[in-house]
Amino acid sequence: MDIFGHNGKILRVDLSRRTIEEEQVPEILYRRYLGGGALSLYYLLKELKPKVDPLGPENLLIFAASAVTGTPALGFSRYTVAAKSPLTGGFGEAEAGGWWGPELKFAGFDAILIKGKAEKPVYLWIKDGKAELRDASHLWGQLAAETHAMIRKELGDDRIRIALIGPGGEKLVRFACISNELKHFNGRVGLGAVMGSKNLKAIAVRGEKKMPLFAPERARSVVKEVLETYKKNPGTMGELGTARAVMPLNAGGILPTRNFVSGSFEKAEAICGETMRDTILVNRGTCYACPIRCKREVKVDDPYKVDPLYGGPEYETIAALGSLCGIGDLKAIAMGNQICGAYGIDTISTGTTIAFAMECFGKGILTTKDTGGIKLEFGNAEAMLQMVEKIGKREGFGNLLAEGAKIAAEKIGKGAENYALHVKGQPLPMHEPRGKTGLGLAYALSPTGADHIEAPHDPMFASEAGLKSILPLGIIEPLSALDLSSRKVRLFSYLQHFYNMFNSIGLCIFTAVPFGPMPCNALVDYVNAATGWETSLWELMKVGERQSSMARIFNLREGFTEEDDHLPNRFFQSLEGGALEGKKIDPSEFKQAVKAYYQMMGWDERGIPLESKLAELELDWLKSERI
Amino acid sequence: MDIFGHNGKILRVDLSRRTIEEEQVPEILYRRYLGGGALSLYYLLKELKPKVDPLGPENLLIFAASAVTGTPALGFSRYTVAAKSPLTGGFGEAEAGGWWGPELKFAGFDAILIKGKAEKPVYLWIKDGKAELRDASHLWGQLAAETHAMIRKELGDDRIRIALIGPGGEKLVRFACISNELKHFNGRVGLGAVMGSKNLKAIAVRGEKKMPLFAPERARSVVKEVLETYKKNPGTMGELGTARAVMPLNAGGILPTRNFVSGSFEKAEAICGETMRDTILVNRGTCYACPIRCKREVKVDDPYKVDPLYGGPEYETIAALGSLCGIGDLKAIAMGNQICGAYGIDTISTGTTIAFAMECFGKGILTTKDTGGIKLEFGNAEAMLQMVEKIGKREGFGNLLAEGAKIAAEKIGKGAENYALHVKGQPLPMHEPRGKTGLGLAYALSPTGADHIEAPHDPMFASEAGLKSILPLGIIEPLSALDLSSRKVRLFSYLQHFYNMFNSIGLCIFTAVPFGPMPCNALVDYVNAATGWETSLWELMKVGERQSSMARIFNLREGFTEEDDHLPNRFFQSLEGGALEGKKIDPSEFKQAVKAYYQMMGWDERGIPLESKLAELELDWLKSERI
Repeated sequence: MDIFGHNGKILRVDLSRRTIEEEQVPEILYRRYLGGGALSLYYLLKELKPKVDPLGPENLLIFAASAVTGTPALGFSRYTVAAKSPLTGGFGEAEAGGWWGPELKFAGFDAILIKGKAEKPVYLWIKDGKAELRDASHLWGQLAAETHAMIRKELGDDRIRIALIGPGGEKLVRFACISNELKHFNGRVGLGAVMGSKNLKAIAVRGEKKMPLFAPERARSVVKEVLETYKKNPGTMGELGTARAVMPLNAGGILPTRNFVSGSFEKAEAICGETMRDTILVNRGTCYACPIRCKREVKVDDPYKVDPLYGGPEYETIAALGSLCGIGDLKAIAMGNQICGAYGIDTISTGTTIAFAMECFGKGILTTKDTGGIKLEFGNAEAMLQMVEKIGKREGFGNLLAEGAKIAAEKIGKGAENYALHVKGQPLPMHEPRGKTGLGLAYALSPTGADHIEAPHDPMFASEAGLKSILPLGIIEPLSALDLSSRKVRLFSYLQHFYNMFNSIGLCIFTAVPFGPMPCNALVDYVNAATGWETSLWELMKVGERQSSMARIFNLREGFTEEDDHLPNRFFQSLEGGALEGKKIDPSEFKQAVKAYYQMMGWDERGIPLESKLAELELDWLKSERI
Repeated sequence: MDIFGHNGKILRVDLSRRTIEEEQVPEILYRRYLGGGALSLYYLLKELKPKVDPLGPENLLIFAASAVTGTPALGFSRYTVAAKSPLTGGFGEAEAGGWWGPELKFAGFDAILIKGKAEKPVYLWIKDGKAELRDASHLWGQLAAETHAMIRKELGDDRIRIALIGPGGEKLVRFACISNELKHFNGRVGLGAVMGSKNLKAIAVRGEKKMPLFAPERARSVVKEVLETYKKNPGTMGELGTARAVMPLNAGGILPTRNFVSGSFEKAEAICGETMRDTILVNRGTCYACPIRCKREVKVDDPYKVDPLYGGPEYETIAALGSLCGIGDLKAIAMGNQICGAYGIDTISTGTTIAFAMECFGKGILTTKDTGGIKLEFGNAEAMLQMVEKIGKREGFGNLLAEGAKIAAEKIGKGAENYALHVKGQPLPMHEPRGKTGLGLAYALSPTGADHIEAPHDPMFASEAGLKSILPLGIIEPLSALDLSSRKVRLFSYLQHFYNMFNSIGLCIFTAVPFGPMPCNALVDYVNAATGWETSLWELMKVGERQSSMARIFNLREGFTEEDDHLPNRFFQSLEGGALEGKKIDPSEFKQAVKAYYQMMGWDERGIPLESKLAELELDWLKSERI
């Protein structure tokens, strides 16, 4: 079984019954679903009944690495957490890098399936092929860093990797996250709340097993070549992290500002990657086997205490807690990032939800009466920080925002819905669809709601030079970032297959093309060297395509319709200020693009996968699940 | 331009105006269509008006090699001839190996587009980048070998490669073929008649240019590895040729016998590859750069004179002139093969059309009155040989059969249509759909009518061992040859993409998997080494998929409908005798499979490609051509 480079074992945990079982997974399942998102969907579709309460014991919480995770190559550090999302009510999935995924494999397991609810708080401890549930009553209520330290201490091993939730997850904040090593986040769709609903505080893993490789020399030679390419042209990802995006996006008029009213922020420079490097950055972190070191570690002493323990803000966080809230104070953003990390809440949804409230406040829909006295105005950093903490604690007005912008807006009423910018209940990440139409499609069509890594973004493919890295996908001609023709739909759908495959195989987007140094064909070579599968980009892209149709069916079962494949109205209105001032998306053109996507995917005009398309994707077993 | 290993030039010949022009083809066209069938379809769809007379001057006759043809690797010897078919009235296309395709490239051209009609017979002479039309009045009426010798003699070069027609093409036999080196045939759909209708007797080519390779060392290393694999395990293709299939097919009950009434022939052994090897075989021929040497050269002195000049019968010929006509006489078959070669008529259609007439004769629908005294009975070798020659000459009853089984049956009436086994007017090749359901789909769905190399056949994939070579396509689970579920449809459609790609890139099916030693991934490597394209199996498979939708639109324009995607009734009735006695195809199951195929292809329920599927395949320009 080990010929294909993984253990082939999953762990099934029933928290209600306190049972733990091992199960061997047939190799064919790995080949068809790889791991991550697609493998999680396989189990969710097989084992989760539709319409269950996402925060009830029936929900199935899955941690899934891939057949290749933890093999010694840059990028294969990521793992998926999946469940029915309490934020969207549909397929919930988020990946994280770091060290936890590889360590799970070293400990002998590829995935963990968790159902039920523990009577009292517990954590799961997996070591070298053995697993046990341990009491976590003393950890309940602890912040992330404290929890992390206490578990390591009580298990007596500093090399244990821990995925955990903070008080936000315990209190069922609908966008609570899960973190590992305090700095790597399964950020979105509220999976921390699912974990909290099960009374599961953490999963600690430790193992000594090394991943076998089918053709070790070949694998090493592929990695060596990629690393040499990287060394020759390292780019700025290591130096500036994802925050390198702030200045170019602002210059392009697509840095989300003041709840997406504008794409241009007058204080962009104060919060950009270069400023971070020159001021608060103290170290660069990384993930398993990766030389890029894109993660930030920042330290602030005054006026806030920010500890490098929680890493530092990514671009998404900087924009969400910064420009989106009109805040140009990097230290405040770093502090907000730390609070989110400590309480275990998603920085993107936190920032977006606060920005939504700020716009409502500015419009008079909310007043200090509602907010408990907080002047929730754009640009008010203190107000932002107070709200972040209140959300993490579900305290006061934070208790309402902890429901997410969509539910909060419904409860507020008075037209607040117009300012809650979400798709399928998931608040928008920090990319402006009016300046990147493919991203707009990604937001509308991602099964997890607005998601910024559903596919790489349009501007990368607006020039021949930009296209070069994805030539193997058969995309040959450049396309304007503003194009919304069927050619853009094709580009998006191919890229979505591609990134779905990354998701399922647990590969970081910053290591492989178009962002990173690993070419498509080297990726295929590496997977073959690791597994012995003799796979191809054709087969791997088909895994990606398969994943979309599986997720679609998950959402159809939950009652989603084509009406949910939309963008908030704001994006059909003009951008204010900046390089793209006045730019808006044409709604009928957008609708047509969504319909074109359905056709390209082999779905009917309502977005329901056709029976024979399912068969083509080896998803015959989902035929009867389509409604 | 040469960075991608070809010249990028096509030659446009207008025979009516006697003009010859060169045209540079943009690299992107090669990348999208590669060459062969897909590139031909590009020009046919752009430049040929629908509903023209296939034998009129408006028809466009295309000879097309590929971006890779003629580079020094086994298998890349093939070229396509395409036009509107006089046999089917739809897309007509046939490939041949040999030496002509590479020589065309050495002479400086990738393809030739021929329109109009010469006032008097001519031939085209292309040497080292220059082309001229020469008088062929003295060649008109000559058999193939004489024509070949006369052209070589008058041009004074024995290394000239010549594609030519025989009297069959001149006389517009609807299944006349084109041959090169007398032994390699663009056999099917009547392209020889199109050439004849244009008064074009031959195209002679000679060139000194060598094909540049983008990465010569890498290319050589891929080829070296493939050749080593081949040497280690050469199989029986070289030793027995395609005739190696006779005995296993007969044992499996699927050797077409007596016009497909049976799948078992009592005299199979007398006509099999082993018998040929041990009796009449004098040499093994081959194609450019290929070590397999699967071509036969046979010699018979008595009772017929068969010259090795015309090669020897392939499996298709052996079955068509042999078992299908109930004839167990290998020498007679060899003689029939020679007559077909000399007159330039397709052995498959010739044999099938004669077998059809034999069955009619047996049923009393035809009598010696109709046949000019020939006792056209199953098993009568002399009658078969007489008919072959009469068809080639369009003499007597042969003049009717020269119209093809479909038209002949319509003219004969009296229920003769029941015995004319064709799809879209093209007689069935020598494979039994009742024993290979995917082949049945291939017959029904091939745009050129019943075609046996639309995809590799079912039995290859009925075991895990058989599947091994196509793992990169993502086909993992074996499927019975008799399975007709949507899983078989998927298998067929993927294999069809794969073989379409072979067709377009000019690759012989006996050199690459599943038949030959070149693995999928080595093929991709080689194409990249030759062209520098950084392509992938994903992109190459998409070329194959593209080709199917292009051909579909060609046929829709010509008035074909989903009613034409059928099999003759015989195959819904029981096989008689042999291992599969009683086996029949269920008609509603078959219909359902055809519909499933449409869905998988992104076509509507009538088999019309959906608008956005066309866009996905970069065929937006065909949107308005769909009806």
